[in-house]
Formats: sequence, C-alpha cells, structure tokens
Amino acid sequence: MRLLIANPNRTEAITDACATLARAAASPGTEIVPWTNRDGPPVIDSLYSDSMAGRSLARSLVTIAQRVDAVVLAGFGSYGTGAVKEALDIPVIGLPEAAMAFAAPLCHRFVIVTTSPRMIPYTQDLVHALGFAARCAAVRAVGLPPVGKDEPPAPEVVRSLAAEVAAAHASAGADLAILGGSRLSPYAAALRGCTPLVVIEPLACAVALAESLARLGLRQSKAGKFAPPPRPLGEYD
Amino acid sequence: MRLLIANPNRTEAITDACATLARAAASPGTEIVPWTNRDGPPVIDSLYSDSMAGRSLARSLVTIAQRVDAVVLAGFGSYGTGAVKEALDIPVIGLPEAAMAFAAPLCHRFVIVTTSPRMIPYTQDLVHALGFAARCAAVRAVGLPPVGKDEPPAPEVVRSLAAEVAAAHASAGADLAILGGSRLSPYAAALRGCTPLVVIEPLACAVALAESLARLGLRQSKAGKFAPPPRPLGEYD
Amino acid sequence: MRLLIANPNRTEAITDACATLARAAASPGTEIVPWTNRDGPPVIDSLYSDSMAGRSLARSLVTIAQRVDAVVLAGFGSYGTGAVKEALDIPVIGLPEAAMAFAAPLCHRFVIVTTSPRMIPYTQDLVHALGFAARCAAVRAVGLPPVGKDEPPAPEVVRSLAAEVAAAHASAGADLAILGGSRLSPYAAALRGCTPLVVIEPLACAVALAESLARLGLRQSKAGKFAPPPRPLGEYD
Amino acid sequence: MRLLIANPNRTEAITDACATLARAAASPGTEIVPWTNRDGPPVIDSLYSDSMAGRSLARSLVTIAQRVDAVVLAGFGSYGTGAVKEALDIPVIGLPEAAMAFAAPLCHRFVIVTTSPRMIPYTQDLVHALGFAARCAAVRAVGLPPVGKDEPPAPEVVRSLAAEVAAAHASAGADLAILGGSRLSPYAAALRGCTPLVVIEPLACAVALAESLARLGLRQSKAGKFAPPPRPLGEYD
Amino acid sequence: MRLLIANPNRTEAITDACATLARAAASPGTEIVPWTNRDGPPVIDSLYSDSMAGRSLARSLVTIAQRVDAVVLAGFGSYGTGAVKEALDIPVIGLPEAAMAFAAPLCHRFVIVTTSPRMIPYTQDLVHALGFAARCAAVRAVGLPPVGKDEPPAPEVVRSLAAEVAAAHASAGADLAILGGSRLSPYAAALRGCTPLVVIEPLACAVALAESLARLGLRQSKAGKFAPPPRPLGEYD
Amino acid sequence: MRLLIANPNRTEAITDACATLARAAASPGTEIVPWTNRDGPPVIDSLYSDSMAGRSLARSLVTIAQRVDAVVLAGFGSYGTGAVKEALDIPVIGLPEAAMAFAAPLCHRFVIVTTSPRMIPYTQDLVHALGFAARCAAVRAVGLPPVGKDEPPAPEVVRSLAAEVAAAHASAGADLAILGGSRLSPYAAALRGCTPLVVIEPLACAVALAESLARLGLRQSKAGKFAPPPRPLGEYD
Repeated sequence: MRLLIANPNRTEAITDACATLARAAASPGTEIVPWTNRDGPPVIDSLYSDSMAGRSLARSLVTIAQRVDAVVLAGFGSYGTGAVKEALDIPVIGLPEAAMAFAAPLCHRFVIVTTSPRMIPYTQDLVHALGFAARCAAVRAVGLPPVGKDEPPAPEVVRSLAAEVAAAHASAGADLAILGGSRLSPYAAALRGCTPLVVIEPLACAVALAESLARLGLRQSKAGKFAPPPRPLGEYD
Repeated sequence: MRLLIANPNRTEAITDACATLARAAASPGTEIVPWTNRDGPPVIDSLYSDSMAGRSLARSLVTIAQRVDAVVLAGFGSYGTGAVKEALDIPVIGLPEAAMAFAAPLCHRFVIVTTSPRMIPYTQDLVHALGFAARCAAVRAVGLPPVGKDEPPAPEVVRSLAAEVAAAHASAGADLAILGGSRLSPYAAALRGCTPLVVIEPLACAVALAESLARLGLRQSKAGKFAPPPRPLGEYD
Repeated sequence: MRLLIANPNRTEAITDACATLARAAASPGTEIVPWTNRDGPPVIDSLYSDSMAGRSLARSLVTIAQRVDAVVLAGFGSYGTGAVKEALDIPVIGLPEAAMAFAAPLCHRFVIVTTSPRMIPYTQDLVHALGFAARCAAVRAVGLPPVGKDEPPAPEVVRSLAAEVAAAHASAGADLAILGGSRLSPYAAALRGCTPLVVIEPLACAVALAESLARLGLRQSKAGKFAPPPRPLGEYD
Repeated sequence: MRLLIANPNRTEAITDACATLARAAASPGTEIVPWTNRDGPPVIDSLYSDSMAGRSLARSLVTIAQRVDAVVLAGFGSYGTGAVKEALDIPVIGLPEAAMAFAAPLCHRFVIVTTSPRMIPYTQDLVHALGFAARCAAVRAVGLPPVGKDEPPAPEVVRSLAAEVAAAHASAGADLAILGGSRLSPYAAALRGCTPLVVIEPLACAVALAESLARLGLRQSKAGKFAPPPRPLGEYD
Repeated sequence: MRLLIANPNRTEAITDACATLARAAASPGTEIVPWTNRDGPPVIDSLYSDSMAGRSLARSLVTIAQRVDAVVLAGFGSYGTGAVKEALDIPVIGLPEAAMAFAAPLCHRFVIVTTSPRMIPYTQDLVHALGFAARCAAVRAVGLPPVGKDEPPAPEVVRSLAAEVAAAHASAGADLAILGGSRLSPYAAALRGCTPLVVIEPLACAVALAESLARLGLRQSKAGKFAPPPRPLGEYD
Repeated sequence: MRLLIANPNRTEAITDACATLARAAASPGTEIVPWTNRDGPPVIDSLYSDSMAGRSLARSLVTIAQRVDAVVLAGFGSYGTGAVKEALDIPVIGLPEAAMAFAAPLCHRFVIVTTSPRMIPYTQDLVHALGFAARCAAVRAVGLPPVGKDEPPAPEVVRSLAAEVAAAHASAGADLAILGGSRLSPYAAALRGCTPLVVIEPLACAVALAESLARLGLRQSKAGKFAPPPRPLGEYD
C-alpha cells in the first residue's frame, strides 16, 4: 500500500519529521510517500496562512493522489481538507479527525494541547466542526516560538506540555491528551513518561486509520457533502 | 463612507448584480466599491471551489481594503472569511453572518434556501460554525443550473423558492427565509409576494451591518481569534 | 425616521441617558423619541420587577408606536419583548438581541458583564433563550449599588468592569465584551481605553439595527411566533 | 396542607375545572384553594396575553400565599412564574415543569400537544428554557377555538388529540404525551383510552409535586436566581 | 401502598439506612419494603461493580415486584434501571432521575456531589443520559473511604460536603446541591445547616415521586424504550 | 497479534459469523480468538437482555483477556463495555464506537439501521452516550424476526435495509450507513450494491481499530473513568 503524507506547509523539515513518524507507525508493506506543499505558507499558524495553503494543496493532490492508495493531510488544521475529500476517490484523512476518532473509545474526555495560545480558538472551531465537542474537555496551548526560530530544548517543551495536560486533568477532568500540531508530535514519547494520561500522537492515528480504510475498501461518501464538484476541476482554476 | 463589495468568484455578472443590490441597500453617502476575485473560480458550488477562492481573495483584499471603510464578502460561504478578518483592521462581514444576525430578532426559527442540493451540507456546516444552529429550522435547496448555463425564467425560480419556503414552514415551523446564495438575491422582491414569511436578502443586511459597524467604530476583535497573524503577511506567500 | 427608545422602567434619568446615547449613535435624519414606562418599576433588577414592567410596557407601546418607524426596548432584559413584537407591525428590537447580533461577526466568544451577581442567571437565561449560547464564553457581574443610591465614582466602575472583562478573557477566552445593562452603557467609552477586547454598547447597536431594518422594510415575521394575538388587544386588558 | 391553585387568567370556568382536577389528584388531607387572576386576561393564547397576566399574578400571590403551604400556577406557560418563585418562600410550581419532571423517568422522549398551532413556538421556548429539550421529541397542536366560543364535542377533541399523539409516535418516536394547556386537561382520561402512550395531565403532577415538596420541607433555592428581589416588593409597584 | 426500596448492592447496613430514610419520607399509609441485592457487589463504586449488580437486580425484582405498588432503586447509578422498567408494569424510579426531576423547578443549576473523584465521570454520564445536562452546573466529589472501612466522623464529612457545595456555588453558579450516593444521604440534614443552597436528598424524592405516580396511575410508557422484552423473561437467563 | 472477538450473547452461530467477518477484516498475522458469553442471553434485543449479559461478560473477560492483545466486544450495544475497559489494561473496543469513529471522517452525517423498531431508542441512547449525536442524522430499523426464528431470505433483508438507508438519505441527508447489529453484518456486501451511500460494517472497523491501537501501544486511559476499580475484582462477586 502507498500512503501519501501531505504536509500542508512548505517547510521540508516538518515533512521529514512527519515521514519519519509515519514510517514508524505504518504496517509492514506500507510505503510512505511524503509530499510538501511547496506553494503553501512556511507554517500554518493563523487563519490567513490556512487560506494560503488550501488552493495549492487541493490542486496538487488531485494529480499526485492518482499514484497512492490513501492520503493523510499532515497538519492539525482545516485548509482544504473537505476540498480534497471532494476531489478524490481514495480515503483522505486529516490529523484532527483521526486523533479524535481514536481518542473517543479510550477516554471520558480529551484535552487538545496546541502550539500557541492564538491557535486555541482555531482548534476549538475544528473540534466543533468535526462534531467532537461533547468529548472535548478543553483546548490548551504551550507557547512555541515561530517555526525557524530557535526551538526550546526538548525537555523544556515536554515540561510545558506536561503542565498543560496536568492542568486539564485537574480542572476539567481530561483523561487523554491529543497533541494538536505536527510540531508537537516528536515530543509524544517523552511526554508519555511525564503524565498518567494517554497521549495521542495524531499522525500515527491517521496513518493507521488511512491504512485500515484502504484495506477495508472504504473512503469518504460520494453521496453527499463530498460528492465530486459539479464541474471538471480544471474549470475552477 | 466607502464599502468594498468583494465577490469571491470571478464572474463579473455576479459582481454587477451584487453592486446593484448593494447600492439599493446603502445609505445616502455610502459609496459602493465592487471588486471581483479575478483569480478565483467562476462560481463557488463546492468545497473545492471554496478552497480555490480563499488565497487570492485574502491576498488581494489586504491591499485593496486600505482604501475603504469596511468590507462585505459577497457570497454565502466561508472561503477565507476568517483570514480576511485577521488580516484587516476594518470591519469584514460575510453574507451568512449578516443574514443570520438580522434574522435572529425577527423570527422564531429561519430556513435557509440554497442554490442546489449539494450545498445543503456546506450550508449546514456554515450555520453550525457561526453558532446559529439553535435558530435554524432547516436548510433546503432549489436546483439552479450551473452559472453560465441557461437560467430558468424568473417566475419559475420564484415558484421553486416559494415551494421550499412553504415546505420549511409547514414541516419545521420556519417563519423567516434567508436566501443562501448571491444568485438568489435578485429574486427576493418577487419571492416576498409569494410567501407570508419574512424574506432576508443577505447582501442588503451585510451592507447595513457593515455601515453600522464602521459608523460606530466597531470591527472584529484583535484580542483573540482574529488577531493579526504572527508574521508579516508577505511571508505566508 | 422616528425611533422610539422605550425605557422599560420608570426612572427618567435612565431614559435621559439612553436618549443621549441613542442620539449619538443615530444616523443623520433619525429622530429619537424617548419614552418612559411610568407605570413600571423603578429598575429591573429581578424577575419580579421584570414582571411588573411587561404589562404597562406592552399596552402603552401599542398606542405610542403608531407614530414611529421602529421601537428599541432600552433595557437588557426580557419583560414583554415578545408581546410587543406580536402586537406591532414595525421592527421591535431589544438590547440583548441587538448586542449579540452585532457581536457574533466580530469575535470568537463574548462575555456579558451585568450590573450585579444576582442578574447572572437572569442574563444566562436570556442568552440561552435568544439562541446565542454557543457564542457566549461567560456572564459575569460587577456589583453596582441599587439605582438611586450613591453611584460609585466612574473610574471605580470602569476599573471593576475592566477586571471582569480581563478575567473572562483569561479564563474563558472571551475576545469581546457586551455591557449587559443600560446603567453600564455610559462607561463604554472609558472601558475601551482599559481593555484590548472590543466593547459593545448595546443601545448603539439596537439603534443601528432598528434603523437598518426600517430602511430595508424588514420587521419581525408575522408567520409564526410573533403573529398578532388571536383577539383584539383590548380584550386582554 | 393547603395548596393554592392559581389560574393565571380571569376565566372562572377554567379555575373551576382546575380545582376539580386538583381535588381529584390531591392526597387526603390536602385542601385545594382555588384562585383566579381577576385582573388578568381571559385566556393566555399569545405572548401579549402572557405579559398581561404576570403583573397582577405576582402582586396578588405575594399576599394570598401567606395562607397556604405551596402554590401551583395552573397554566401551561411562563407569565411571571420566576417572579412568584423569587417573591415567595414556599414551593411554587408551574405546570410545564411538573409535567416534564414526571415525564422524564417514564419515557424515552415526550410530545407536548398544545391548544393551537400558534402556541407551538411559545411551548418550544418553554421546553428549552426549562432545560428539557433533550427529552422532547416534538411539540404539536390541535386547533381548539377561542375560549368562550363553542367548544367542539369532547369525542372530536379527543380524536384530534389522539391523532397528534399518534403522529408524534410514528414520526418522532415519542412514547409519552403531555397535555400542554389547562383546557386540554379534562380530556386526559378519554385520551388514555385511545393511545398506547402514557398521557400526562400536568395539573395532577403539579399537585403531587407541590405536596411532596411541602411535605419534605423543600422549596425553590434562595441562593441564586430566585433570591428575594433586592428591594421591598412594594417599591416595584 | 407498598413501596419496594431496592438496594442494588449487598450491604445490609445501607439497606437499613435507606429504609429508615424512606420511612421518614413516606406518606402515612405507605409501607416501605426494603430489599437487598444479595447476589450483587458490596458497593457500586465503579463501572465494573455496576455491571455486577444489574443481572441479579433485574431478575429478582421481576418476582418480588409482584407484591408492591412501585419500586425505588436506592442507589445513585444506572445498573439495570432500564431493564427493570422494561420488565415491570409498575412505576420504577431511580435516585438520580428523582433527584433531578425535583431539583429542576427549584433552582437555576444544580451541583451533584458524589462519594469519590472516580465517580465524577460516571455521574456526568448519568446526568447526560437522563437529559439533565442543561441544568447541571457541576459534578464534584468528596473522598469517602471504601464502604466497610472506618467512616470519618460525621462533622468531617459534612464539612467536606459543604466545601464542595460552596465551591460549586462560587465557581459555577450552582444554587442547589444533590447528594449523589446513598452513603451521603444521612448527612443531608446536617449539611442543610452549613449551606444556603437547597440540599436534595434523593431517596426522599424518589419515595415521594414513586408514591405520586402510583397514586395517579402512571408508570413508565410501554409504547417505546420500556416496552416488555420480545421474549418471555426466562429465556434470557 | 491475538484479538479476542467476544460475542456478548450465547448464540454460537453469531459467534461463528463474527469470527468469519473478523478474519476477513484482520491483517495478516492477526489471530482471531472467538469467544461466546455462554452464561449470557441468547440475543441482546432489549435493556433486560443487555443487563443479563454484562455480569458474565465482564467476569469472564478478566481471565480470558490475559492471553490476547486486544478485545472486540462483538455486539452493537453497551452491556458492560465500560466495566471491561476498567478491568483490563489492553484495548477494549465496542462495535458502536468503532463504527462511528470510522464513519466520522467519511461523511457529513450517518444513519444507523438497527434490527427492530424497539432497538431505536436503545441505539439513540448509545449514540448520545458516546458523544456522536452531532453526526447522526437518524436511527432507523428493519424488522428482523427473533433470532432462531426463520430468517427472511437475504435479498429481502437487503431490500429492507436499502429502503431504510434511502429514506434516511432523502429525509435527513444521511450520506453513510452503519449496520447497527451483528445480525446485519453479513448483509453489508450485498447492501453496498444497492445504495450510493458508504456502508460501514462495524465488526471490520472494530478489528482494524483494535489492531491499530495494539500496534501503536494505546489503550483506554487509566487516569479517569476507566481507572481500575478500587477493590480487587473478586470482592465484587
């Protein structure tokens, strides 16, 4: 099976990190095909950058996806996820929906920890739009510096993550934590050593879910919201 | 006061129709400045075309909006509305939020009639995202042909609209109807002759709301979701 | 255009303050017609006083409203708002619905600050009844003394308001504040100097909304909840 | 125990019918004290008449209630229920809350059948305000003529009620029916013969609930929404 | 009238305490018939013990209930409550639904205080399942030791309860407290001396509600969720 | 990997059918270990039978599960699912949660078709309890005869299923169908030939999800609702 891991931003280092995580999560026999949205923004840290990502992401994937069995959109956001689901006939999975689908059977209520306070409302909107609000205890944030700036040392990031998780556990009864941003995924293993809560790393869930769907012959329904657009795709350019 | 009426698609005829409606709704002294998203899709009839519209819309408006007092996004969709609100310091209003804000005090529950059945889930998601689900009795659709194809004669469109409105009144208790698409706006006056329900034409509401906000010195909050993106906008290109 | 500003309580000083605010918010050419509910309670600070206000308010407005183009009910409560909408054929707007309609496009989630802790449940019920709960982060209160007692110095009230707004921002992510009571309206300008959140003064919004509705020929629907009562109004006396 | 059965409208025939039903439902030793709101409207069939009822209801009950152990507000509406709860220190129960409280343990979802189509939105608002929306399958209506007009023969009313109940069972899965209006209460027994659903007659529930609360020493909480108004009640006149 | 008080666990001391409370709450002429689930777990402190209780509870009550007029399930949980309602034709009432039904008319929003932190999610699920989430401000817990261990002195338990109630009042606006566990019921009277909130002791409410239903000839509807199982009960053994 | 497929009822034919489906869905290298709840009811077709299943299911699995890597509870119900999650340290997955988790990314809103009309409220409660109500368009039912009676010919069952799916598509906008009962699973393939909606067969999803969780080292959180019961399990017997 070939699985496309599509990074919605243009930062190759994030693509590489995602590819590594995806390969670690994939079943034997699954080939991970990384892809970077070269015409996208350097990072998705706002609604504006989200809008900058969607067009080239959707247009490019229409072509590229011919050669794979399923697509994982490797960012914790929205940017054209629905557009790609409409345009393609193979399973398309975003990180937030995969993470919350896997979290639901494992917990009472989850917390999502995102990369910066300004992404909290963005992430709350995602949870709400995907229909998981009844299971979300809280959305919280650490304060990572912008991509490309000096990343703090890993132990410091992990301590911050653990503190937010602990706060959500104490104040809102969260018993599972979702890492809400690709940049946070590499810290999952270390965080698991610092909290009694289950920690969900979304990319692994999305890889597993995409594999499962492809194997079972399932993909997004074409009988409603994700039916193919009414015109040939080229006419929308 | 100068008000930008930004058509998110590239079809000039729709821009023109919107400009006409906007001028009819505007207060004396308000100048309507129409704008067409030339790099956008011909119509927004799907999630894919929505994604095609957002990038050029947001990028262009950043420049153009320097010369106006408020912006109305003249389509009944999402396509980068939040991005424009983030990027600008003047009021930015979309048709759905203006229509529902005006509908709320006037009714028990409203129906939105959109242009084609496939836009029903898209529109339900909009209602939900904007927080008006508690007031929405139903989303229904007529079946307009694609833009550019032969439009049915006006009386036929009006009859279809009236039938959907009557059905929502009878089956879901709707007492107000919102026209959910710029293409439907020109039929508002005729529809009012065929139904006892109040009919909301969203562009007029958006013009009035944008004027009011500009006059009162209000605009979207910069203390949360719509704070300026963390980087200079050019870096996201 | 003539706009009735109806104070639901009998305190003339509040009517005067509302008239001043309304004139400042109105468009050129709008005449503000203030009215005081002389048979109402001195203040609406409870469910009991709310019930004392409704009867004379609704009965009087039926007559008075013949001479105006729209009615603004100038209090942040319920007291017969629906009754007046039923009885009249011109737009009738309450402060809470105007404030929340204007707030919705400008923020992620709003806080309402009301005049005393005991009005918090009353105000929560209002928000819920009007269908805006999904957008309300919190309802909080300052502790104004009863009307007619010594009002604290303005800077002190503003400091209290700013503290509640800041607390709602920090603890619940509110990015916009609504002043939930006519007595708080005069502090709006000063409060804007003390908080990064957008501050909504409801009377200005209600005036602008009522003007817009009257100009666009819209009023509450008569096809459902606000249909005229089944009997001549006099029979209900 | 003495139980006040307060009819919010001025129609003595309804008071009498309520008193008869209340006596049939009361425990041995409970004295039913009927009261008519002589300064209220002849019937509550609209928001306007609801507003006409509240003032005299609340003012009168403050005095009368000194001589009883609990109060039942014998109408299926809102009209000052909260005001009476604030003003009094004995249990005050409205029909809608008693009916829904008794219905909740007995069913999956209930239907409320009200007296006329125009009371459907009014009743939906009641259900929502009292927090029972999650258990309400539907609100439906028969079409009784105005009070004082010729009432249709009982078997015809019962047939209409049974038809609405059957429709709610078939289309919305309702398994219990609440009669939403004092005028419908006398038909409860006959309706039970025509439907497999449990039929709730609200006045009997309210009598039983008020008796239980009085016996157990419970009444509405004075620690929040129903705390006594801040001023002596006479000052609100 | 004979009322079965069914303790879902096998601890006789709890049965005895419940019987005492039930007798104090019952009307004259009501005979309280206590019953202990001898094949059940010693306590219901988890989902596992809940599952251990249901089978013998449901099977036994089918027989025993032939001799009574109504059944009260005397624990604050779920364990087969629906099964018993299906199997029997007389009213069956659980403590949580009785407590919340009585609380609804008496407050704005209630807090439930349960016996240990691990029962908070269990109790939140109960509230949600019974449809009362809109009225529940919070679920909190004291930390009682396991049944059979040394119970702390009563004043200490009461102090802990009062502290949780006060916290829910201050932080979530709760104005009524429900004791969420039979073990807490004996502290109700003392707690009432330490808090301005109304305190609901669920067993008393359930006794009163069961008596009322039996007297009024009401029981759970057999037209839906609680219809008799399709096969003779013995076949499920 | 060894996966336990636990049939909550005692009908071996259903266990066998589930094992066959599970083997078809499993990855190479996964061993399917079927298990029948011999002390359970012959079928779970009611709340009563649900209660009959839970005790022996939970007690038995505690022992058996020592020898497997994950557990799938192969019925579309609740019966002790939470108890098993509490008691075990390996992933435990029920069919409803697996089906809805997989459905969420693939559709706008799903319909669940269950085996008989009386299971509709039971299934609605499941959807609600698991937090997926926002994504559920409808729950509908075919009318299978009791287990053990003559099953109708397969084409007839498929026609009934297709009719319910089509009705949910037309009336509620469902674009994906979940088969809500193990007895329906064998018809999934044939149903796919008769409807444009995506059809989810829950057992396949549960197998894939359980495999994924086991491979990724995830299981239900022990930091909240599913923490081990406070006492040694044997004490609850």
